[in-house]
Amino acid sequence: MSQRVRIALDAMGGDHGPDVVVAGAELALARHPEIEFLFFGNSSMVTPLVARYPALKSVSQITHAEIAVRMSDKPSQALRYGRRKSSMWLAIEAVRKREADIAVSAGNTGALMAMSKFALKTLPGIERPAIAALWPTLRGESIVLDVGASIGADSEHLVDLAVMGAAMARILFALERPTVGLLNIGVEEAKGLEQVREAGRLLRERQSSDLDYIGFVEGDDIGKGKVDVVVTEGFAGNIALKTAEGTARQIGEYIRDAMNRTLAARLGYLFARSAFQQLRDRMDPRRVNGGVFLGLNGLVIKSHGATDAEGFAAAITLGYGVVRDHLLAKITAAVGGARMELRQAVGGAAQ
Amino acid sequence: MSQRVRIALDAMGGDHGPDVVVAGAELALARHPEIEFLFFGNSSMVTPLVARYPALKSVSQITHAEIAVRMSDKPSQALRYGRRKSSMWLAIEAVRKREADIAVSAGNTGALMAMSKFALKTLPGIERPAIAALWPTLRGESIVLDVGASIGADSEHLVDLAVMGAAMARILFALERPTVGLLNIGVEEAKGLEQVREAGRLLRERQSSDLDYIGFVEGDDIGKGKVDVVVTEGFAGNIALKTAEGTARQIGEYIRDAMNRTLAARLGYLFARSAFQQLRDRMDPRRVNGGVFLGLNGLVIKSHGATDAEGFAAAITLGYGVVRDHLLAKITAAVGGARMELRQAVGGAAQ
Repeated sequence: MSQRVRIALDAMGGDHGPDVVVAGAELALARHPEIEFLFFGNSSMVTPLVARYPALKSVSQITHAEIAVRMSDKPSQALRYGRRKSSMWLAIEAVRKREADIAVSAGNTGALMAMSKFALKTLPGIERPAIAALWPTLRGESIVLDVGASIGADSEHLVDLAVMGAAMARILFALERPTVGLLNIGVEEAKGLEQVREAGRLLRERQSSDLDYIGFVEGDDIGKGKVDVVVTEGFAGNIALKTAEGTARQIGEYIRDAMNRTLAARLGYLFARSAFQQLRDRMDPRRVNGGVFLGLNGLVIKSHGATDAEGFAAAITLGYGVVRDHLLAKITAAVGGARMELRQAVGGAAQ
Repeated sequence: MSQRVRIALDAMGGDHGPDVVVAGAELALARHPEIEFLFFGNSSMVTPLVARYPALKSVSQITHAEIAVRMSDKPSQALRYGRRKSSMWLAIEAVRKREADIAVSAGNTGALMAMSKFALKTLPGIERPAIAALWPTLRGESIVLDVGASIGADSEHLVDLAVMGAAMARILFALERPTVGLLNIGVEEAKGLEQVREAGRLLRERQSSDLDYIGFVEGDDIGKGKVDVVVTEGFAGNIALKTAEGTARQIGEYIRDAMNRTLAARLGYLFARSAFQQLRDRMDPRRVNGGVFLGLNGLVIKSHGATDAEGFAAAITLGYGVVRDHLLAKITAAVGGARMELRQAVGGAAQ
């Protein structure tokens, strides 16, 4: 990694394409002037957009890509028509070739994961990559993984998720020994899926110095910030994440509705408008935009497809942060160490 | 069913026991004077509490139960020490003997479900009962099931859930053909768990007059009220429900915090206090307290264990409503009809 952080952008990804990607890059650059960008996309669309921002233009390269992956295609379809030619593929490929430190895309999640796996391959010992999300809580932020890459998980995969999530928490939250919980439908040991209970046994036996396994957590413990890292397979994780987003939006509507109903409410709103602004900021889903793909030989971040420039800038900033903090090297080391410990623990338990 | 609605109460269930159960019964009675109560519990605790409310006392019978099921015990443990003797068992038993129309308990969910299955048995054709929850949405309310009874589900169980949920929606929401969606991690047909996709195929083929299957829904569609009935297996359903509850509580904290921060915010709060009251009411989890056990030869409602008298009254009121509307008879008929249609549809598809 050079002094500068080089970020590859899939300029065609997301519901709004290059407009949002370029404007988001400009915002992120203003915050972190040491970023350089490699844009991949339709150059006749991207070049004039980048040209609007002289500072951005001076640190950007634009590479033309013939093809943009469609949001609704299956991963297998996207791989068929988009491999080697799409903006998404080329952004990931730049990471593989070490031309970029990280790739960011707001495109089709399944396609992005499939292409990332295909191009970057998984880390030794990791079978399935995961998507880690930052989740705002009453105590700050937690990491929740997997939020949609792996459907169903055996106990070893859940342990891998715990190890990778803890490595990410050590870096992002500057913690020595982050607390880790397994998402379940009760906190008692006898409850829930067999593979979750087995993962709990494995994590308890590890007695690791790099993570503090505290047991099962339930859905309502996530928002409380009960643990730094919440581990679950991707089906339940994705449903939890989207349900929380939906609930926040729903309550946002309730608030708007309540504050418009009477003159007194509107007056009260005026008095309290800086408080409401603060509330909106805390509830703003753009603030924590960006799912980090973990378990690959390279870093890729998925931005929310529907986000705007501010949200895309948050995804880039997250990418900048994990590159600066050597996330990939630290995850790779943690996974290697954990595999060894786990083998010893399982061997020890069997005696 | 008599003119009056007879409700059996597990007086010892929940985090607060008889205090909340008796006070909740009094509140529910004030709203629906045609309720009669059968209390089961430690009579030396329950009798003096009931005696405080003459109106309640005049419509209540108290039956002594030696044993109270503990909140943290496994279902198998609870069955072992609580069968035939616990307040929970006796309340369910009253439903089995047709002495009560419905049982309500705020006790240990797993134990309540295990005892309900044991005492009441499942409906013909239904292998696994489910817990249905009412979920407040931007459009009103939806039914979400299963929220924790069955972990994992094959496609036939998911179809059963759709049929039972739709029967409940027809009654509670007075709809002819409620819309039904399968909870998944994407709306495209190729996404998600195999059994969810298969259930989607079965529901599409049925072309039923009693439910309108609209396809997959995601976590954030629940709060939007995109469908009247959201179908999922119990692990993901429980996590979705608790995550939504946790998010609502978290945002409630954010609001309190924001409105206390400055003098202007506090003044604004005073002006808008009726709006805030309305907001609190809409976010109040007690408003929709009560999971309905579906798929059994009898009706049982699980109240939130941590609820107060207002919340327990909501669970009783829900029970009162489903008894008045003949939920059990209608679910039984719907399940019978659906089984027949499904056999025909599967037979037809195989030709």
